[in-house]
Amino acid sequence: MRLRKKPWLKEAIKEFSDIVILSDYDKYKGKWHEIFGNNNPIYVEVGTGKGKFITQLALENPNINFIGIEAQVDVLYYAAQKANAKQLANLKLVLFDVNDILEIFDNGEINKLYINFCDPWPKNRHAKRRLTHRNFLNKYRVILAEDGEINFKTDNEKLFEFSLNEFCELHLYLKNISLDLHNSNFKDNIMTEYEEKFSKLGMKIFRCEVRFR
Amino acid sequence: MRLRKKPWLKEAIKEFSDIVILSDYDKYKGKWHEIFGNNNPIYVEVGTGKGKFITQLALENPNINFIGIEAQVDVLYYAAQKANAKQLANLKLVLFDVNDILEIFDNGEINKLYINFCDPWPKNRHAKRRLTHRNFLNKYRVILAEDGEINFKTDNEKLFEFSLNEFCELHLYLKNISLDLHNSNFKDNIMTEYEEKFSKLGMKIFRCEVRFR
Repeated sequence: MRLRKKPWLKEAIKEFSDIVILSDYDKYKGKWHEIFGNNNPIYVEVGTGKGKFITQLALENPNINFIGIEAQVDVLYYAAQKANAKQLANLKLVLFDVNDILEIFDNGEINKLYINFCDPWPKNRHAKRRLTHRNFLNKYRVILAEDGEINFKTDNEKLFEFSLNEFCELHLYLKNISLDLHNSNFKDNIMTEYEEKFSKLGMKIFRCEVRFR
Repeated sequence: MRLRKKPWLKEAIKEFSDIVILSDYDKYKGKWHEIFGNNNPIYVEVGTGKGKFITQLALENPNINFIGIEAQVDVLYYAAQKANAKQLANLKLVLFDVNDILEIFDNGEINKLYINFCDPWPKNRHAKRRLTHRNFLNKYRVILAEDGEINFKTDNEKLFEFSLNEFCELHLYLKNISLDLHNSNFKDNIMTEYEEKFSKLGMKIFRCEVRFR
């Protein structure tokens, strides 16, 4: 997402310091259950944006811990606002680059990973930046628990095709593949801001679930 | 394909008895290499229709043996005409119901199986009739050689989605998944009659390759 820069947000987000993690990232790896104060499963969304998806999920599932990762403070601020308004004890937001995800999670520490409407990086020379590129998958493999899974949604056909081929090349296990989510039997879909906007324009939404084992 | 019945075709097709197999099916199982008189690989198309795809393939690949299977004489007649016109020694056509495919091929006897634009059977209660239903896949598994594969094409999104999920549920190995074949890098595509007609109307063509091992 390209945004008009709002430099004041970098300061303003500090107001939500009980929800948002902005520094000292190395303190968290392997400690997430301690931080949440329970042993509930941990679900992570990478590229959490303005947070509609993860705050709604956290609200509906108080017995699961949620972590939203987002590199851009200009959107994460709004996610923090939403989370703060709902006083969600089971949600943390991390201002962080997914490239370094191995620095904040320990082996098998998370149970589900959501990738929602990530940047498709349409040019071939940028393929490595797609969050479903095998280099990323091999990182997710490390931090996901034995029975952990990825839930992936996109409206970009080319990205979905690329992703399916990456999953299959790595011999991962796919299920519930949907080529038109909003006209399928899938229940309990929570829409992201982006999904709401683009599905209204008639864009098809693609989705699948992926396991490593 | 629903066709106007042409009862005379049942007689007329006998004219091509060197190409078309119309009876005594049990004589062929395990004997295909003998019949072709060589040890070349054997590629089979199920639902061969009017034969544009398989006759073109056979013409371009003289060192591979091809077998087209089709249950309806009303279309197979035209496939036989095409094959006859080209005098293809490496092509046989079989008037046969794919349900009974295990009766005409031995274990591991074939190297590739093409499923092109098969009937999508859109109603759920007819799912078992889809040629990518797991009951069919488990038959193909028997007759395909160790490194054998299925090549599947369709213009029907719901059928493709169903098929991907069947393949994945059986833990088969997919590759070269295409959600829009005619706008992809895939080369050497041979179009079926159906594909030519419907892709001209702007229908997307879906394709993938599947292996059991």
